[in-house]
Amino acid sequence: MSFRADVITLFPELFPGPLGASVIGRGLADGLWSLQATHLREFATDRHRTVDDTPSGGGAGMVLKPDILASAIDAVSPADDPRPRLLMSPRGVPLTQARVRELAAGPGAVIVCGRFEGVDQRVMEARGLEEVSIGDYVLAGGEVAAMVLLEAVVRLIPGVLGAAESHAEESFENGLLEYPQYTRPQVFEGREIPAVLTSGDHGRIEKWRREQAESLTRARRPDLLKE
Amino acid sequence: MSFRADVITLFPELFPGPLGASVIGRGLADGLWSLQATHLREFATDRHRTVDDTPSGGGAGMVLKPDILASAIDAVSPADDPRPRLLMSPRGVPLTQARVRELAAGPGAVIVCGRFEGVDQRVMEARGLEEVSIGDYVLAGGEVAAMVLLEAVVRLIPGVLGAAESHAEESFENGLLEYPQYTRPQVFEGREIPAVLTSGDHGRIEKWRREQAESLTRARRPDLLKE
Repeated sequence: MSFRADVITLFPELFPGPLGASVIGRGLADGLWSLQATHLREFATDRHRTVDDTPSGGGAGMVLKPDILASAIDAVSPADDPRPRLLMSPRGVPLTQARVRELAAGPGAVIVCGRFEGVDQRVMEARGLEEVSIGDYVLAGGEVAAMVLLEAVVRLIPGVLGAAESHAEESFENGLLEYPQYTRPQVFEGREIPAVLTSGDHGRIEKWRREQAESLTRARRPDLLKE
Repeated sequence: MSFRADVITLFPELFPGPLGASVIGRGLADGLWSLQATHLREFATDRHRTVDDTPSGGGAGMVLKPDILASAIDAVSPADDPRPRLLMSPRGVPLTQARVRELAAGPGAVIVCGRFEGVDQRVMEARGLEEVSIGDYVLAGGEVAAMVLLEAVVRLIPGVLGAAESHAEESFENGLLEYPQYTRPQVFEGREIPAVLTSGDHGRIEKWRREQAESLTRARRPDLLKE
């Protein structure tokens, strides 16, 4: 059984979009994963196809109605669906590479894209929605965030990346940011490739890269070293 | 002068993509911001249109060539371009809402989308590329990351969001995650809207929301409270 993604959104036409390109899109075409986008508005019950209403207690913006969202979730994800139900939201637990790996090893994900001011708290509780944040900034909606999550997850599904594209030395896979990379030409605008990299001495190259990764991480992300 | 975004990418056909939808796309159509995607491969100089080469010192993957990327940057961003030059990369400084606000107040951004194993370090130094990370996970490329950055920035450009969509009480704008939201119906699957929200007592509502935001932030993101 391949990884199965369902996305609930007010902009189903945006999918697969970027997820249809590159190795991610090839994996989709090859059936290594599947993607279904469901239009939330199809589950509206009035003739204006209303999906949101004003916040209880006042305030700006609109809130997604719990009953409409619950119907959409139930349509794509029955009660015994083993897939996690995620809500892309800046209030969520920050996405990490560890969580990405966990999702990639699982059966898929049901992803709700927020819009407006938020989602009624009761439907999150009633349907076990897990709020996931891709970073400490605010987007107009959850669609691009869902693409980020799916791209990160899908590239770890076996067969999606070619054998040449290893995961082993990537940022976060060993708790460090990646060392600097160089390629030809040997001299670019008067700047040379560091001599160690063309020395052919694999021990020295490995040691240099490790030191560079550590010093970059210390300078830029001391929080990663603490973990 | 409106906010001007240039994106350098191997997948120019993905833009505007999601950035052409919703209020972000309306702002683009209305000229509140502009977006130009430039194909990196146009700057290749051999007949195979090569943009990458193997990493100096060995290792998996391919590295974007410094000379080709420099030509592309120079074509869209002359030396006196006041816009920051960003490289979407998991090695970068994490994007925050504060940085998003700063970018939104500026003249625009030149955004390089990484692919493969990375970008030659020398072109980053020679062209002053600032590495920006949207989160602690690894993507297949920088395209969706660039969309995240632009969506976050563009929604803060005056006129893009309607007056009804305030920024004031959003997550991160006051150092706290947002309080829970509720809307009609009054009872959803036996769950009621908290009575305080329908009390009409604005002082109590504000106090309740503040307490909820603080307790959610303490439980989920104690790191935000420390800052």
